[in-house]
Amino acid sequence: MPSTKGRATGDLACGERPRDPDVAALTDLYELTMAASYVAHGLDRPATFELFVRRLPAERAFLVACGIEPALEHLEHLRFSPGTLAYLEGLRLFERAFLDRLAALRFTGDVWAVAEGEVCFAGEPLLRATGPLVEVQVLETFLLACVGFETMVASKAARVALACAGRPFVDFSARRDHGPGAALAAARAAYVGGASATSNVLAGMRHGIPLEGTMAHSYVMSFPTETDAFRAFARDFPARSTLLIDTYDTVEGARIAARVADEVAADGIRVQAVRLDSGDLLALSREVRRVLDAAGHPEIRILASGDLDEHAIARLVREGAAIDGFGVGTRLGTSADAPSLPVVYKLVEDASGPKAKLAPGKRSLPGPKQVHRATTRDGSLHDVLALADEPAPPGTRPLLARVIAGGRRTSPPAALEEARERRAANVAGLPARLRSLEPVDPPFEPEVSEALAALAARAAGAAGTGRR
Amino acid sequence: MPSTKGRATGDLACGERPRDPDVAALTDLYELTMAASYVAHGLDRPATFELFVRRLPAERAFLVACGIEPALEHLEHLRFSPGTLAYLEGLRLFERAFLDRLAALRFTGDVWAVAEGEVCFAGEPLLRATGPLVEVQVLETFLLACVGFETMVASKAARVALACAGRPFVDFSARRDHGPGAALAAARAAYVGGASATSNVLAGMRHGIPLEGTMAHSYVMSFPTETDAFRAFARDFPARSTLLIDTYDTVEGARIAARVADEVAADGIRVQAVRLDSGDLLALSREVRRVLDAAGHPEIRILASGDLDEHAIARLVREGAAIDGFGVGTRLGTSADAPSLPVVYKLVEDASGPKAKLAPGKRSLPGPKQVHRATTRDGSLHDVLALADEPAPPGTRPLLARVIAGGRRTSPPAALEEARERRAANVAGLPARLRSLEPVDPPFEPEVSEALAALAARAAGAAGTGRR
Repeated sequence: MPSTKGRATGDLACGERPRDPDVAALTDLYELTMAASYVAHGLDRPATFELFVRRLPAERAFLVACGIEPALEHLEHLRFSPGTLAYLEGLRLFERAFLDRLAALRFTGDVWAVAEGEVCFAGEPLLRATGPLVEVQVLETFLLACVGFETMVASKAARVALACAGRPFVDFSARRDHGPGAALAAARAAYVGGASATSNVLAGMRHGIPLEGTMAHSYVMSFPTETDAFRAFARDFPARSTLLIDTYDTVEGARIAARVADEVAADGIRVQAVRLDSGDLLALSREVRRVLDAAGHPEIRILASGDLDEHAIARLVREGAAIDGFGVGTRLGTSADAPSLPVVYKLVEDASGPKAKLAPGKRSLPGPKQVHRATTRDGSLHDVLALADEPAPPGTRPLLARVIAGGRRTSPPAALEEARERRAANVAGLPARLRSLEPVDPPFEPEVSEALAALAARAAGAAGTGRR
Repeated sequence: MPSTKGRATGDLACGERPRDPDVAALTDLYELTMAASYVAHGLDRPATFELFVRRLPAERAFLVACGIEPALEHLEHLRFSPGTLAYLEGLRLFERAFLDRLAALRFTGDVWAVAEGEVCFAGEPLLRATGPLVEVQVLETFLLACVGFETMVASKAARVALACAGRPFVDFSARRDHGPGAALAAARAAYVGGASATSNVLAGMRHGIPLEGTMAHSYVMSFPTETDAFRAFARDFPARSTLLIDTYDTVEGARIAARVADEVAADGIRVQAVRLDSGDLLALSREVRRVLDAAGHPEIRILASGDLDEHAIARLVREGAAIDGFGVGTRLGTSADAPSLPVVYKLVEDASGPKAKLAPGKRSLPGPKQVHRATTRDGSLHDVLALADEPAPPGTRPLLARVIAGGRRTSPPAALEEARERRAANVAGLPARLRSLEPVDPPFEPEVSEALAALAARAAGAAGTGRR
């Protein structure tokens, strides 16, 4: 498995470069019609929206925040292109004054956000945007799609990492992700969530993620014999070769890999690993380990892939499979058991004051908020969801920081490595019950501060509250 | 619900323009290491790969082919950019000769493919690519992600269309799709599959899909009263307004909508529709219908949205809900019950002859293939999977056509409307059992021609066959 640290051509932690010039149009039509109406009625005044996940899927005890950096890059570069403006004009829906507002539109507001890799829970804001209503409104669709998707995959990856119990795993999802764009973002999120590498070359190039890869069965079949194929690959990629040994007979494939390893060792070449991709991975891995050890190759690692997820990996690890690393694809990149998060972006304050929704199951809390987290040495975790202007309770740290002020980043984008390390430290520090792969009941919930609870109670009794 | 036919800035049916110059790097690393090895060992000779879906998810009786046009555009424009080549060189994995081969690489081969909107089944090739092994190998990851995703969404949308039984439905999925790129492709595939419109502005602009949109609850809450909000919207978007009536109390919202409709009618403005987004849609729709009719507004349509899928819609339709159209989001754009298809891209022939895989559950058939379809007036359907050079059985039509010859399109990309109409005609012509929303047992299977079966039997006894 050739592993190599990528050199990024652009900024390591940023979204999709080069940007599509029309990406501001990746928005729901109603964001624009509402915005036009706000302009017409003098309502384009400061407002605050918060992005959060309403509730967690059954098998998610926590979220890993991700997709924040690409979202911030989107905000920072928000422009309606001449092509988009011409298209919108052609729709004959919008007044000239509104099109002019869009043509001049830049994001001029403030954003507070949690850092990528931070562990979060349902109801906790991942991002809070304040600015003129039109600016914060037209961003909704992109922010939800971007932060929702990457947070979903990073959270799934963190579970896979827990299952791996220290063994590395590689993102192999590109071919089954939801199109090429999703593949690029999934690799990024999987890396933050705990993957050690990706097979996706563009993700390596754009995000500086280490690349790994092996060979396909068609490669083995393209040579007259398995021995020829292994010999060719070992010599072509010296000291980095992972040989796929299940094309014909896995155990015989292991014997051939060992013989080829002996043969190329004379030239100073080392076979790094073998990969299993089918059959009973537990039994085969043990048998292959015996074959390799008996042939004098205890240093050749065994990798496994094929329809794996955190549960399959946890079972293999628990039962003592002789597997040193995993390739995880479809179920990681599509978050197969929960392929969406109920992520929402809600108005919490406008020029008329705090706003909230009261409908059963869709309740939200009014006002701009902060999350204060206390962790203790015994691993307990306590979050307080408070109004943004409340003082921090002693012994806590705030999860949201101001990352954009007046439309400009307050500091350069963080390196993706930092997010990955933050996730590792945060997940390791979670109480044991939240690190379980089984559904957690009751789910973790932040405490609501007294001031926030009081404001919510007042809002519930006031006008200006609605269903969602 | 303002509905408007988009003017595309580019070509209607084509993929993502402007293209990312580095998109050729959206490939798994092993495609490149294998390709390098093929070049080194003189194996860069003509080969044929076929893309197909191994088996259908439980709740898919058929597939709707989609994502073919963006895939062909990718092939036609395949280039490894200077940036990608510099990155690959920096990996220190590849010889100069291979990097030079990549720098000069263009797709020079032939592609046969089914038309978008065609109904297909498991095991039937959606696309067949023939060309020098390196060219067809490096395409694998992109083709699978592109065709697999859009086919998955178009197939889901076709089920939603069946459930709607003639009522229109709109793609509302953008915010919950797997990132912005997935949102753009999902809108395209949903339209082919049967959506009448999308809320996604960029999809309208790029693909000429009609746009629809309503308003959010936050819009209603941004005005002092619901009446103010409805009045403003109706006047701002005359004759195209859909009023969201469930922000406070749905039935009262309907009364207010009717009063606003009376009021603006004096100025020649017509309220087009109301939308329900929560609660018991069956009971509320009937009550709202009564309210609107009693107020003299039988012309105001009722639209519904909120966690809908084909089963929820079929139930509403069956039970006589007074709903004229649906908005369908998350479950459509993520194909929530089956968020991936087991789509594969398999070597079927190379310079040494036909190739096949024999592993249980992963069996594939050797040789380049064609699908011949016979449909009868009584609605029965019969597909024959045959070798590409076999004569067509009488009374059949071939599903695959040559769309790229020597690296060039044989005809301009088809308009998306054509694909949509083809899907409609094809699905309408299916046997009733395949139009059911319930799992179909046994699934439809193509007949295998005698010549193909004989070749497969010979391949099973020969060397050069492998696990997958």
